[in-house]
Amino acid sequence: MTALGDLLAHDRITQALAQVMGRLGWDQETMMPKRAGEQRGEEMAALESVLHARRTDPRIGDWLEAATPGTEAEAAQLREIRRSYSRNTKIPERLATEIARTTSVAQGIWAEARAAEDVAAFLPTLEKVVALRREEGQALADGGDVYDALLADYEPGMTGAEIALLFDRMRPRLVALRDAVMEKGPAPMLAGPFDTDLQLALSDRIARAFGYDLSRGRIDLAVHPFSSGSGQDVRITTRVDADDPLGCLYSTIHEVGHASYEQNVDPAYGLTAIGQGASMGVHESQSRIYENQLGRSPAFCAWLFEEMRARFGQIGVATPGEFTRAVNAVRPGFIRTEADEVQYNLHIMLRFDLERALMAGDLAVGDLEGAWNDRFAADFGRTVTRPSDGMLQDVHWSVGLFGYFPTYTLGNVYAGCLASALSADLPDLDASLARGDPSPATRWLAERLQRHGTLRLPQDTIRHATGRDISEEPLLDYLEAKFTTLFDL
Amino acid sequence: MTALGDLLAHDRITQALAQVMGRLGWDQETMMPKRAGEQRGEEMAALESVLHARRTDPRIGDWLEAATPGTEAEAAQLREIRRSYSRNTKIPERLATEIARTTSVAQGIWAEARAAEDVAAFLPTLEKVVALRREEGQALADGGDVYDALLADYEPGMTGAEIALLFDRMRPRLVALRDAVMEKGPAPMLAGPFDTDLQLALSDRIARAFGYDLSRGRIDLAVHPFSSGSGQDVRITTRVDADDPLGCLYSTIHEVGHASYEQNVDPAYGLTAIGQGASMGVHESQSRIYENQLGRSPAFCAWLFEEMRARFGQIGVATPGEFTRAVNAVRPGFIRTEADEVQYNLHIMLRFDLERALMAGDLAVGDLEGAWNDRFAADFGRTVTRPSDGMLQDVHWSVGLFGYFPTYTLGNVYAGCLASALSADLPDLDASLARGDPSPATRWLAERLQRHGTLRLPQDTIRHATGRDISEEPLLDYLEAKFTTLFDL
Repeated sequence: MTALGDLLAHDRITQALAQVMGRLGWDQETMMPKRAGEQRGEEMAALESVLHARRTDPRIGDWLEAATPGTEAEAAQLREIRRSYSRNTKIPERLATEIARTTSVAQGIWAEARAAEDVAAFLPTLEKVVALRREEGQALADGGDVYDALLADYEPGMTGAEIALLFDRMRPRLVALRDAVMEKGPAPMLAGPFDTDLQLALSDRIARAFGYDLSRGRIDLAVHPFSSGSGQDVRITTRVDADDPLGCLYSTIHEVGHASYEQNVDPAYGLTAIGQGASMGVHESQSRIYENQLGRSPAFCAWLFEEMRARFGQIGVATPGEFTRAVNAVRPGFIRTEADEVQYNLHIMLRFDLERALMAGDLAVGDLEGAWNDRFAADFGRTVTRPSDGMLQDVHWSVGLFGYFPTYTLGNVYAGCLASALSADLPDLDASLARGDPSPATRWLAERLQRHGTLRLPQDTIRHATGRDISEEPLLDYLEAKFTTLFDL
Repeated sequence: MTALGDLLAHDRITQALAQVMGRLGWDQETMMPKRAGEQRGEEMAALESVLHARRTDPRIGDWLEAATPGTEAEAAQLREIRRSYSRNTKIPERLATEIARTTSVAQGIWAEARAAEDVAAFLPTLEKVVALRREEGQALADGGDVYDALLADYEPGMTGAEIALLFDRMRPRLVALRDAVMEKGPAPMLAGPFDTDLQLALSDRIARAFGYDLSRGRIDLAVHPFSSGSGQDVRITTRVDADDPLGCLYSTIHEVGHASYEQNVDPAYGLTAIGQGASMGVHESQSRIYENQLGRSPAFCAWLFEEMRARFGQIGVATPGEFTRAVNAVRPGFIRTEADEVQYNLHIMLRFDLERALMAGDLAVGDLEGAWNDRFAADFGRTVTRPSDGMLQDVHWSVGLFGYFPTYTLGNVYAGCLASALSADLPDLDASLARGDPSPATRWLAERLQRHGTLRLPQDTIRHATGRDISEEPLLDYLEAKFTTLFDL
């Protein structure tokens, strides 16, 4: 074997074990018995220690020095392995193991605290998670910015400062648009109840229409919908509520965007360092464009309106236009995952600033609830009255995901760029969407972006797909145009 | 750290990873998407290679030499680690990895071949599995008997020759009893259909009554029911068929026997080398005594009769006696898992002889179907007309389980011993069973046997629980007494 061959063979086993770790995470959220959490924490810590040892194996350094890539794909694999090796060798195994063990248990504690509306029950755990991730960030940052070091796990090439500037540019236009739509008064609302089995059947139908391959995936229920796995085994979860069919359907479309990305990566890249999505932001661009630019388009909404009337009978709105406004309603609300396209990014900006302050040491965990609630009142004009509407609403921090939130808005920005390029290439897309068929768009995305996996760096992935530079302008232009027409601003 | 401390810390991570491997197996049977098999094979092979490397880590040899156990439990842990180390160091990593990869894929091929009644589609795969396991047996046997070497994985301390003698002693009494019951003509039969949701609800109720802790377990559906996991996460599967409620209910009770054993091991032994059942035979003794001596007792059947009438209405039999005879019916049949207590062991004897011949090289895989069908005709007087009734009926060989089948009958023999001791200790058991409550018996088993895990060797585990030597007599005496009374022989 050559150094290249040895390195890639070693990495392939690591990639396979990383898939196993992902499967344990899926199981924990969907299938695991209630009282298995402690043992599962130890099992995941054991696997994490194996992964950490493999990722920091000193032979990787030697192989990397000696290996010569023969193809573009191999060069990209070496780039990703080098990035992973360089990061992981900075983290002591004790710390990696401790993070895995703590976050595994923390998630259960968060879920119970959230159900009980009991912030105090979660704070000691969150203290521990924050301290561990700050320690990790410091180890990675080499004296640089702790938050940037963590962010690089999710969006290589981005910095907190750049994101802060981007968010500053976006905020005024989003706030102005939000206020203009809200001034028009409440949007129409669907009225149910909507049988949950029928919802799930429609969710299944739509998942397939958006290209999700159920022979290499499955759909289950979970509190917080997610997608998990790569290649031949990519699973999603959704949620269901008899009063809110749109929650189920659009969660499904969103996760199908993530899952399709993982399913559509070139099989030749399977179980290699480039066999997954290029970053969290690029991933989110896929889920967002599926959910919003395609799924919430007036054309697709017109089809969905007829489909829902046929399945549920009376749904509380009488025309495709009313239905489209209901789907795109901009309402006051506390919950990020229920937010509309306009306000969603404002929810992210709140979290970004708070977690950046936590990681910088400028905000204590004990002050987080107050800071959240103050900021929410300032940004959204409403008072948080229960923690599940506030700082306990998201799973992310309990599992240690600091630096992850801004990738949601980056994803929206990327989706804006992609949608603009895609519309120019597919003039007849609306006609197809009006038949409930987004496949011209999902095929375009599969071909231009998804199949390449991590062949390129995140922003290069977007630039390669669109042929243009990245900017927030297409997203903001699209939002203003869509909502101006829809709500007659 | 001392040698003992280092060794036990190393083993604890290995045990945790082994639990992960078990979870992958469960997932494959219950949740895995249809076309994920190839990638899953590679994932399991990766984890198997990690496990093999850990189990053969040369430091284990050094630690074992230097370690001094301080307690009975530590002495038992060292004994089990020594046995595992000694076996695993004989198997090359390449072979261990290849077996994991092949059997993972083989199971899917078996399932498809079975559904298609296509032996030819399965033979090349079975050839490969047999060759790999023979190679493994040869590596383990050090010139000794290949089958015995494999058997030691499932029932340490047993040999094929001993089992052959045991089976020879059992066969005539079982055949005589079978023929005597069959001469009395057909037993009563339940008549449905039986709503499958109601079956599963009753299955759930009975699982709890037998002590299964669903906060540390769950019940799903699978083709071939099984139990999986140890400690805090022990899952079972069952099957359901609208025409055959007893298949569902007694599969559940059987798997609850396995699962309760794993759930009831002293938590102090969790994730250690003695934190599981002592052997496959001892395991089967628990599933069998739950299913047969308790679940098929006339007293429990009388309760179940009323319960089923209340839930299903008319069930085709009119009295508790008729119901008990239906539950204990001895009928001609091809399928091992559907066999009654009398004939079950005859199914095992057939498989034992065939797999022993396969491993000895006395029977070619290509001749297996003919040999199966000939032997079935000789032992059961009937002609196998489709492979799913014959050599394709069981999953075991596809996943490489050679040497496993005889442990089912050993389990029956052990269960006979345990039931005899238990009845002597619990004179009022029948009254409790007649109220649908087997808990005095399951508590006796938990206390006498289950909590000890692998503290003792398999046969010592049984001897310790019963206070007597192991013999087939109690089982045969019990069967003859029960069936003579039930069918008025």
